[in-house]
Amino acid sequence: DLVELTCQHFQKNTQSKLLTGQHWLITAGPTREAIDPVRYISNHSSGKMGYAIAQAAVNAGATVTLVSGPVTLSTPSGVNRINVSSAENMHQQVMTQVENTDVFIACAAVADYKIAEVSAQKIKKSAETMQINLVKNPDIVADVAALANKPFTVGFAAETQDIEHYAKDKLKRKNLDLIAANDVAKNGQGFNSDNNALTVFSYNKKFELPLASKSDVAQQLVALIAQQRDEKQ
Amino acid sequence: DLVELTCQHFQKNTQSKLLTGQHWLITAGPTREAIDPVRYISNHSSGKMGYAIAQAAVNAGATVTLVSGPVTLSTPSGVNRINVSSAENMHQQVMTQVENTDVFIACAAVADYKIAEVSAQKIKKSAETMQINLVKNPDIVADVAALANKPFTVGFAAETQDIEHYAKDKLKRKNLDLIAANDVAKNGQGFNSDNNALTVFSYNKKFELPLASKSDVAQQLVALIAQQRDEKQ
Repeated sequence: DLVELTCQHFQKNTQSKLLTGQHWLITAGPTREAIDPVRYISNHSSGKMGYAIAQAAVNAGATVTLVSGPVTLSTPSGVNRINVSSAENMHQQVMTQVENTDVFIACAAVADYKIAEVSAQKIKKSAETMQINLVKNPDIVADVAALANKPFTVGFAAETQDIEHYAKDKLKRKNLDLIAANDVAKNGQGFNSDNNALTVFSYNKKFELPLASKSDVAQQLVALIAQQRDEKQ
Repeated sequence: DLVELTCQHFQKNTQSKLLTGQHWLITAGPTREAIDPVRYISNHSSGKMGYAIAQAAVNAGATVTLVSGPVTLSTPSGVNRINVSSAENMHQQVMTQVENTDVFIACAAVADYKIAEVSAQKIKKSAETMQINLVKNPDIVADVAALANKPFTVGFAAETQDIEHYAKDKLKRKNLDLIAANDVAKNGQGFNSDNNALTVFSYNKKFELPLASKSDVAQQLVALIAQQRDEKQ
Protein backbone atom coordinates (compact mmCIF):
# COMPACT_ATOMS: atom_id res chain seq x y z
CA ASP A 1 0.00 0.00 0.00
CA LEU A 2 0.85 3.65 -0.20
CA VAL A 3 2.07 3.93 3.41
CA GLU A 4 4.49 1.03 2.97
CA LEU A 5 5.72 2.37 -0.36
CA THR A 6 6.32 5.77 1.25
CA CYS A 7 8.17 4.17 4.16
CA GLN A 8 10.35 2.13 1.82
CA HIS A 9 11.09 5.27 -0.19
CA PHE A 10 12.21 7.22 2.86
CA GLN A 11 14.20 4.32 4.30
CA LYS A 12 15.95 3.91 0.98
CA ASN A 13 16.68 7.64 0.77
CA THR A 14 17.97 7.77 4.33
CA GLN A 15 20.11 4.70 3.91
CA SER A 16 21.46 5.95 0.62
CA LYS A 17 22.83 9.12 2.17
CA LEU A 18 26.61 8.91 2.07
CA LEU A 19 27.39 10.40 5.49
CA THR A 20 24.53 9.16 7.68
CA GLY A 21 25.80 8.55 11.23
CA GLN A 22 28.94 10.69 10.78
CA HIS A 23 29.79 13.82 12.80
CA TRP A 24 31.54 16.55 10.84
CA LEU A 25 33.07 19.59 12.54
CA ILE A 26 33.76 22.58 10.29
CA THR A 27 35.26 26.03 10.95
CA ALA A 28 34.42 29.00 8.73
CA GLY A 29 34.89 32.73 8.34
CA PRO A 30 37.61 35.05 9.61
CA THR A 31 38.73 35.60 13.19
CA ARG A 32 39.03 39.03 14.79
CA GLU A 33 42.01 39.82 17.01
CA ALA A 34 41.27 42.77 19.30
CA ILE A 35 43.75 45.68 19.44
CA ASP A 36 41.54 47.63 21.89
CA PRO A 37 37.75 47.81 22.48
CA VAL A 38 37.27 49.48 19.08
CA ARG A 39 39.98 48.21 16.70
CA TYR A 40 40.92 44.74 15.49
CA ILE A 41 42.93 42.80 12.93
CA SER A 42 40.94 40.53 10.61
CA ASN A 43 40.97 39.20 7.04
CA HIS A 44 38.80 39.09 3.92
CA SER A 45 37.27 35.64 4.50
CA SER A 46 33.51 35.83 3.89
CA GLY A 47 32.76 32.38 5.31
CA LYS A 48 30.95 31.39 2.10
CA MET A 49 33.12 28.32 1.36
CA GLY A 50 32.86 26.90 4.90
CA TYR A 51 29.11 27.50 4.99
CA ALA A 52 28.71 25.78 1.59
CA ILE A 53 30.69 22.77 2.87
CA ALA A 54 28.51 22.62 6.01
CA GLN A 55 25.39 22.66 3.83
CA ALA A 56 26.77 19.97 1.49
CA ALA A 57 27.75 17.72 4.43
CA VAL A 58 24.27 18.04 6.01
CA ASN A 59 22.66 17.33 2.65
CA ALA A 60 24.80 14.17 2.43
CA GLY A 61 23.43 13.02 5.81
CA ALA A 62 26.12 14.10 8.30
CA THR A 63 25.51 15.73 11.68
CA VAL A 64 27.34 19.04 11.27
CA THR A 65 28.72 21.50 13.82
CA LEU A 66 29.94 24.79 12.34
CA VAL A 67 32.26 26.96 14.44
CA SER A 68 31.99 30.34 12.76
CA GLY A 69 33.87 33.61 12.96
CA PRO A 70 31.97 36.89 12.40
CA VAL A 71 30.22 36.70 9.01
CA THR A 72 26.97 38.03 7.56
CA LEU A 73 25.64 34.65 6.33
CA SER A 74 22.58 32.78 7.56
CA THR A 75 23.09 29.39 9.16
CA PRO A 76 22.57 26.53 6.66
CA SER A 77 19.41 24.59 7.61
CA GLY A 78 20.12 21.62 9.86
CA VAL A 79 23.57 22.87 10.92
CA ASN A 80 24.49 23.47 14.59
CA ARG A 81 26.31 26.83 14.54
CA ILE A 82 28.60 28.14 17.30
CA ASN A 83 29.73 31.78 16.98
CA VAL A 84 33.23 32.85 17.97
CA SER A 85 35.38 35.94 17.42
CA SER A 86 39.08 35.42 18.13
CA ALA A 87 41.36 32.52 17.17
CA GLU A 88 41.55 31.60 20.86
CA ASN A 89 37.72 31.45 21.09
CA MET A 90 37.67 29.25 17.99
CA HIS A 91 40.43 26.98 19.33
CA GLN A 92 38.58 26.51 22.60
CA GLN A 93 35.25 25.67 20.91
CA VAL A 94 36.87 23.26 18.43
CA MET A 95 38.78 21.38 21.14
CA THR A 96 35.50 21.11 23.12
CA GLN A 97 33.46 19.89 20.12
CA VAL A 98 36.03 17.60 18.45
CA GLU A 99 35.38 14.48 20.56
CA ASN A 100 33.49 11.85 18.51
CA THR A 101 34.09 13.83 15.33
CA ASP A 102 34.69 11.75 12.19
CA VAL A 103 35.82 14.57 9.93
CA PHE A 104 37.28 17.97 10.85
CA ILE A 105 37.52 20.64 8.15
CA ALA A 106 39.48 23.78 9.04
CA CYS A 107 38.06 26.19 6.48
CA ALA A 108 38.23 29.33 8.67
CA ALA A 109 40.89 31.93 7.91
CA VAL A 110 42.37 31.95 11.42
CA ALA A 111 44.72 34.77 12.38
CA ASP A 112 48.26 33.44 12.84
CA TYR A 113 48.96 36.16 15.41
CA LYS A 114 47.08 38.01 18.12
CA ILE A 115 47.92 41.33 19.75
CA ALA A 116 50.49 40.85 22.52
CA GLU A 117 48.80 43.25 24.96
CA VAL A 118 45.19 44.15 24.24
CA SER A 119 44.34 47.61 25.58
CA ALA A 120 41.26 47.81 27.83
CA GLN A 121 40.67 51.40 26.68
CA LYS A 122 40.67 52.89 23.17
CA ILE A 123 44.33 53.65 22.43
CA LYS A 124 45.13 57.38 22.25
CA LYS A 125 48.14 58.10 20.05
CA SER A 126 49.32 61.23 18.40
CA ALA A 127 52.77 60.10 17.29
CA GLU A 128 53.54 59.97 13.57
CA THR A 129 54.31 56.25 13.82
CA MET A 130 53.43 53.40 16.13
CA GLN A 131 53.97 49.65 16.41
CA ILE A 132 51.68 46.74 17.15
CA ASN A 133 53.37 43.77 18.81
CA LEU A 134 51.98 40.36 17.91
CA VAL A 135 52.38 36.87 19.36
CA LYS A 136 51.44 33.51 17.84
CA ASN A 137 47.90 32.18 18.16
CA PRO A 138 47.22 28.50 18.94
CA ASP A 139 47.28 26.35 15.77
CA ILE A 140 43.78 24.84 15.67
CA VAL A 141 44.16 22.37 12.80
CA ALA A 142 47.56 21.16 14.03
CA ASP A 143 46.19 20.65 17.56
CA VAL A 144 43.27 18.58 16.20
CA ALA A 145 45.59 16.54 13.96
CA ALA A 146 47.83 15.84 16.96
CA LEU A 147 45.02 14.21 18.97
CA ALA A 148 45.45 10.51 19.80
CA ASN A 149 42.13 9.64 18.13
CA LYS A 150 42.30 12.35 15.49
CA PRO A 151 39.39 12.74 13.08
CA PHE A 152 40.05 12.69 9.32
CA THR A 153 41.53 16.19 9.18
CA VAL A 154 41.27 18.56 6.22
CA GLY A 155 43.08 21.90 6.10
CA PHE A 156 42.82 24.86 3.76
CA ALA A 157 45.61 26.94 2.28
CA ALA A 158 44.61 30.34 0.90
CA GLU A 159 47.69 31.56 -0.91
CA THR A 160 48.75 34.31 -3.29
CA GLN A 161 51.90 32.59 -4.61
CA ASP A 162 53.74 29.19 -4.73
CA ILE A 163 50.46 27.51 -3.88
CA GLU A 164 51.45 23.84 -4.30
CA HIS A 165 54.68 24.31 -2.34
CA TYR A 166 52.99 25.98 0.66
CA ALA A 167 50.00 23.61 0.63
CA LYS A 168 52.10 20.40 0.63
CA ASP A 169 54.40 21.80 3.27
CA LYS A 170 51.39 22.61 5.50
CA LEU A 171 49.89 19.14 4.89
CA LYS A 172 53.03 17.40 6.15
CA ARG A 173 54.05 19.84 8.88
CA LYS A 174 50.59 19.74 10.49
CA ASN A 175 49.90 16.02 9.96
CA LEU A 176 46.73 16.62 7.88
CA ASP A 177 44.97 14.00 5.77
CA LEU A 178 44.02 16.39 2.98
CA ILE A 179 44.65 20.04 2.18
CA ALA A 180 42.51 22.18 -0.13
CA ALA A 181 44.49 24.98 -1.73
CA ASN A 182 43.14 28.03 -3.49
CA ASP A 183 44.70 31.03 -5.13
CA VAL A 184 43.06 34.03 -3.49
CA ALA A 185 44.97 36.39 -5.76
CA LYS A 186 43.00 35.17 -8.82
CA ASN A 187 39.92 37.16 -9.79
CA GLY A 188 36.56 35.46 -9.46
CA GLN A 189 37.52 32.88 -6.86
CA GLY A 190 38.45 32.74 -3.20
CA PHE A 191 37.61 35.37 -0.58
CA ASN A 192 34.16 36.91 -0.87
CA SER A 193 33.57 35.46 -4.34
CA ASP A 194 30.57 33.19 -5.00
CA ASN A 195 32.85 30.87 -7.03
CA ASN A 196 35.92 28.90 -6.15
CA ALA A 197 38.47 26.49 -7.61
CA LEU A 198 40.45 24.13 -5.38
CA THR A 199 43.46 21.89 -5.76
CA VAL A 200 43.31 19.18 -3.10
CA PHE A 201 46.47 17.33 -2.02
CA SER A 202 46.86 14.12 -0.03
CA TYR A 203 50.33 12.73 0.72
CA ASN A 204 50.58 11.14 -2.71
CA LYS A 205 47.65 12.43 -4.79
CA LYS A 206 46.41 15.64 -6.31
CA PHE A 207 42.77 16.39 -7.22
CA GLU A 208 41.53 19.38 -9.23
CA LEU A 209 38.10 20.84 -8.47
CA PRO A 210 37.73 23.36 -11.30
CA LEU A 211 36.10 26.81 -11.04
CA ALA A 212 32.40 26.48 -10.16
CA SER A 213 29.94 27.90 -7.63
CA LYS A 214 31.09 27.42 -4.03
CA SER A 215 28.01 25.23 -3.56
CA ASP A 216 29.10 22.90 -6.40
CA VAL A 217 32.75 22.88 -5.29
CA ALA A 218 31.60 22.11 -1.72
CA GLN A 219 29.58 19.08 -2.91
CA GLN A 220 32.58 17.75 -4.84
CA LEU A 221 34.89 18.36 -1.89
CA VAL A 222 32.55 16.58 0.55
CA ALA A 223 32.35 13.57 -1.80
CA LEU A 224 36.15 13.56 -2.20
CA ILE A 225 36.71 13.73 1.57
CA ALA A 226 34.25 10.86 2.14
CA GLN A 227 35.98 8.74 -0.51
CA GLN A 228 39.53 9.48 0.71
CA ARG A 229 38.47 8.73 4.30
CA ASP A 230 37.02 5.36 3.18
CA GLU A 231 40.27 4.55 1.37
CA LYS A 232 42.29 5.33 4.49
CA GLN A 233 40.20 3.11 6.81
CA ASP B 1 -9.55 72.26 -9.00
CA LEU B 2 -7.93 69.07 -7.87
CA VAL B 3 -4.78 69.51 -9.96
CA GLU B 4 -4.11 72.96 -8.58
CA LEU B 5 -4.78 71.80 -5.02
CA THR B 6 -2.36 68.89 -5.48
CA CYS B 7 0.29 71.24 -6.92
CA GLN B 8 -0.11 73.65 -4.01
CA HIS B 9 0.15 70.75 -1.58
CA PHE B 10 3.41 69.49 -3.08
CA GLN B 11 4.88 72.99 -3.40
CA LYS B 12 4.08 73.62 0.23
CA ASN B 13 5.59 70.32 1.32
CA THR B 14 8.72 70.91 -0.74
CA GLN B 15 9.14 74.47 0.45
CA SER B 16 8.54 73.49 4.06
CA LYS B 17 11.42 71.02 4.06
CA LEU B 18 14.15 72.37 6.31
CA LEU B 19 17.17 71.51 4.15
CA THR B 20 15.90 72.02 0.59
CA GLY B 21 18.73 73.34 -1.60
CA GLN B 22 21.50 72.23 0.79
CA HIS B 23 24.27 69.73 -0.04
CA TRP B 24 25.28 67.48 2.85
CA LEU B 25 28.35 65.25 2.68
CA ILE B 26 28.48 62.41 5.21
CA THR B 27 31.05 59.68 5.90
CA ALA B 28 30.05 56.39 7.53
CA GLY B 29 31.32 52.97 8.50
CA PRO B 30 34.83 51.73 9.28
CA THR B 31 37.90 51.91 7.08
CA ARG B 32 40.10 48.92 6.31
CA GLU B 33 43.87 49.31 6.31
CA ALA B 34 45.55 46.52 4.33
CA ILE B 35 48.39 44.55 5.94
CA ASP B 36 48.73 42.28 2.89
CA PRO B 37 46.26 41.01 0.21
CA VAL B 38 44.43 38.94 2.85
CA ARG B 39 44.73 40.72 6.21
CA TYR B 40 43.67 44.17 7.40
CA ILE B 41 43.13 46.37 10.45
CA SER B 42 39.59 47.65 10.96
CA ASN B 43 37.14 48.58 13.72
CA HIS B 44 33.67 47.70 14.98
CA SER B 45 31.79 50.58 13.29
CA SER B 46 28.65 49.18 11.64
CA GLY B 47 27.85 52.36 9.68
CA LYS B 48 24.32 52.43 11.14
CA MET B 49 24.61 55.92 12.67
CA GLY B 50 26.02 57.52 9.50
CA TYR B 51 23.40 55.83 7.33
CA ALA B 52 20.63 56.99 9.69
CA ILE B 53 21.94 60.58 9.47
CA ALA B 54 22.06 60.35 5.67
CA GLN B 55 18.44 59.14 5.62
CA ALA B 56 17.33 61.88 8.05
CA ALA B 57 19.07 64.59 5.98
CA VAL B 58 17.45 63.37 2.73
CA ASN B 59 14.07 63.23 4.45
CA ALA B 60 14.61 66.85 5.53
CA GLY B 61 15.15 67.86 1.89
CA ALA B 62 18.97 67.90 1.54
CA THR B 63 20.95 66.51 -1.39
CA VAL B 64 23.12 63.89 0.35
CA THR B 65 26.38 62.22 -0.66
CA LEU B 66 27.44 59.34 1.58
CA VAL B 67 31.09 58.21 1.44
CA SER B 68 30.95 54.77 3.00
CA GLY B 69 33.49 52.27 4.25
CA PRO B 70 32.72 48.53 3.95
CA VAL B 71 29.39 47.83 5.66
CA THR B 72 26.48 45.43 5.12
CA LEU B 73 23.75 48.10 5.00
CA SER B 74 21.57 49.05 2.05
CA THR B 75 21.84 52.57 0.67
CA PRO B 76 19.13 54.88 2.10
CA SER B 77 16.70 55.83 -0.68
CA GLY B 78 17.62 59.09 -2.41
CA VAL B 79 21.22 59.06 -1.16
CA ASN B 80 24.23 59.14 -3.52
CA ARG B 81 26.60 56.51 -2.08
CA ILE B 82 30.33 56.25 -2.87
CA ASN B 83 32.11 53.12 -1.57
CA VAL B 84 35.67 53.29 -0.24
CA SER B 85 37.91 50.97 1.75
CA SER B 86 40.98 52.68 3.27
CA ALA B 87 41.25 56.04 5.05
CA GLU B 88 43.24 57.32 2.07
CA ASN B 89 40.43 56.31 -0.34
CA MET B 90 37.94 58.08 1.92
CA HIS B 91 40.10 61.21 2.19
CA GLN B 92 40.45 61.39 -1.60
CA GLN B 93 36.70 61.00 -2.22
CA VAL B 94 35.74 63.52 0.48
CA MET B 95 38.18 66.16 -0.82
CA THR B 96 36.77 65.61 -4.34
CA GLN B 97 33.13 65.84 -3.20
CA VAL B 98 33.41 68.63 -0.63
CA GLU B 99 33.18 71.59 -3.01
CA ASN B 100 29.77 73.30 -2.72
CA THR B 101 28.98 71.29 0.41
CA ASP B 102 26.98 73.15 3.06
CA VAL B 103 27.38 70.60 5.85
CA PHE B 104 30.07 67.92 6.30
CA ILE B 105 29.50 65.19 8.92
CA ALA B 106 32.45 62.92 9.63
CA CYS B 107 30.63 59.96 11.15
CA ALA B 108 33.00 57.25 9.80
CA ALA B 109 35.37 55.53 12.21
CA VAL B 110 38.52 56.30 10.22
CA ALA B 111 41.72 54.45 11.10
CA ASP B 112 44.24 56.86 12.63
CA TYR B 113 47.10 54.75 11.24
CA LYS B 114 47.81 52.68 8.14
CA ILE B 115 50.40 49.96 7.66
CA ALA B 116 53.80 51.48 6.84
CA GLU B 117 54.67 48.93 4.15
CA VAL B 118 51.78 46.91 2.72
CA SER B 119 52.97 43.51 1.49
CA ALA B 120 52.01 42.62 -2.10
CA GLN B 121 51.97 38.92 -1.16
CA LYS B 122 50.41 37.16 1.83
CA ILE B 123 52.98 37.49 4.62
CA LYS B 124 54.63 34.18 5.60
CA LYS B 125 55.84 34.21 9.18
CA SER B 126 56.75 31.43 11.53
CA ALA B 127 58.38 33.44 14.32
CA GLU B 128 56.78 33.42 17.75
CA THR B 129 56.38 37.20 17.65
CA MET B 130 56.16 39.87 14.98
CA GLN B 131 55.58 43.61 14.70
CA ILE B 132 53.39 45.73 12.48
CA ASN B 133 54.72 49.22 11.82
CA LEU B 134 52.11 51.93 11.38
CA VAL B 135 52.19 55.51 10.08
CA LYS B 136 49.57 58.27 10.42
CA ASN B 137 46.67 58.46 7.99
CA PRO B 138 45.48 61.81 6.59
CA ASP B 139 43.03 63.56 8.95
CA ILE B 140 39.87 63.90 6.87
CA VAL B 141 37.74 66.08 9.14
CA ALA B 142 40.66 68.39 9.99
CA ASP B 143 41.51 68.80 6.28
CA VAL B 144 37.88 69.70 5.49
CA ALA B 145 37.71 72.14 8.43
CA ALA B 146 40.94 73.79 7.21
CA LEU B 147 39.47 74.66 3.79
CA ALA B 148 39.16 78.39 2.97
CA ASN B 149 35.41 78.00 2.33
CA LYS B 150 34.83 75.24 4.84
CA PRO B 151 31.36 73.75 5.16
CA PHE B 152 29.67 73.62 8.58
CA THR B 153 31.77 70.75 9.92
CA VAL B 154 30.58 68.14 12.40
CA GLY B 155 32.91 65.52 13.89
CA PHE B 156 32.28 62.41 15.96
CA ALA B 157 34.19 61.16 18.98
CA ALA B 158 33.68 57.51 19.90
CA GLU B 159 35.34 57.13 23.25
CA THR B 160 35.60 54.63 26.08
CA GLN B 161 36.69 57.10 28.81
CA ASP B 162 36.98 60.86 29.58
CA ILE B 163 34.47 61.53 26.82
CA GLU B 164 33.85 65.26 27.34
CA HIS B 165 37.56 66.01 27.67
CA TYR B 166 38.53 64.20 24.45
CA ALA B 167 35.53 65.51 22.51
CA LYS B 168 36.11 69.19 23.37
CA ASP B 169 39.83 68.84 22.70
CA LYS B 170 39.09 67.36 19.25
CA LEU B 171 36.53 70.11 18.52
CA LYS B 172 39.09 72.86 19.13
CA ARG B 173 42.18 71.15 17.77
CA LYS B 174 40.47 70.32 14.44
CA ASN B 175 38.50 73.58 14.09
CA LEU B 176 35.10 71.82 14.01
CA ASP B 177 31.74 73.56 14.43
CA LEU B 178 30.15 70.72 16.40
CA ILE B 179 31.28 67.39 17.79
CA ALA B 180 28.98 64.50 18.65
CA ALA B 181 30.43 62.28 21.38
CA ASN B 182 29.30 58.82 22.34
CA ASP B 183 30.46 56.31 24.89
CA VAL B 184 31.08 53.11 22.92
CA ALA B 185 31.95 51.24 26.13
CA LYS B 186 28.31 51.50 27.33
CA ASN B 187 26.03 48.57 26.56
CA GLY B 188 23.13 49.19 24.20
CA GLN B 189 24.57 52.17 22.33
CA GLY B 190 27.35 52.95 19.91
CA PHE B 191 29.04 50.45 17.59
CA ASN B 192 26.73 47.90 15.98
CA SER B 193 23.83 48.75 18.30
CA ASP B 194 20.49 49.93 16.88
CA ASN B 195 20.33 52.61 19.57
CA ASN B 196 22.57 55.52 20.44
CA ALA B 197 22.92 58.44 22.85
CA LEU B 198 24.99 61.49 21.92
CA THR B 199 26.36 64.50 23.73
CA VAL B 200 26.96 67.29 21.21
CA PHE B 201 29.39 70.11 21.94
CA SER B 202 29.87 73.48 20.24
CA TYR B 203 32.51 75.93 21.49
CA ASN B 204 30.22 77.19 24.23
CA LYS B 205 27.21 74.87 24.37
CA LYS B 206 26.36 71.28 25.22
CA PHE B 207 23.31 69.37 23.94
CA GLU B 208 22.14 65.96 25.17
CA LEU B 209 20.43 63.60 22.72
CA PRO B 210 19.28 60.81 25.07
CA LEU B 211 19.24 57.08 24.30
CA ALA B 212 16.86 56.33 21.41
CA SER B 213 16.88 54.47 18.09
CA LYS B 214 19.69 55.63 15.77
CA SER B 215 16.95 56.80 13.40
CA ASP B 216 15.43 59.07 16.09
CA VAL B 217 18.83 60.31 17.29
CA ALA B 218 19.79 61.04 13.65
CA GLN B 219 16.64 63.16 13.13
CA GLN B 220 17.39 65.16 16.27
CA LEU B 221 21.03 65.60 15.29
CA VAL B 222 20.12 66.79 11.77
CA ALA B 223 17.69 69.35 13.28
CA LEU B 224 20.34 70.48 15.77
CA ILE B 225 22.99 70.87 13.05
CA ALA B 226 20.58 72.88 10.87
CA GLN B 227 19.71 75.15 13.80
CA GLN B 228 23.33 75.67 14.92
CA ARG B 229 24.37 76.40 11.34
CA ASP B 230 21.59 79.04 11.05
CA GLU B 231 22.76 80.65 14.31
CA LYS B 232 26.34 80.83 13.02
CA GLN B 233 25.40 82.50 9.73
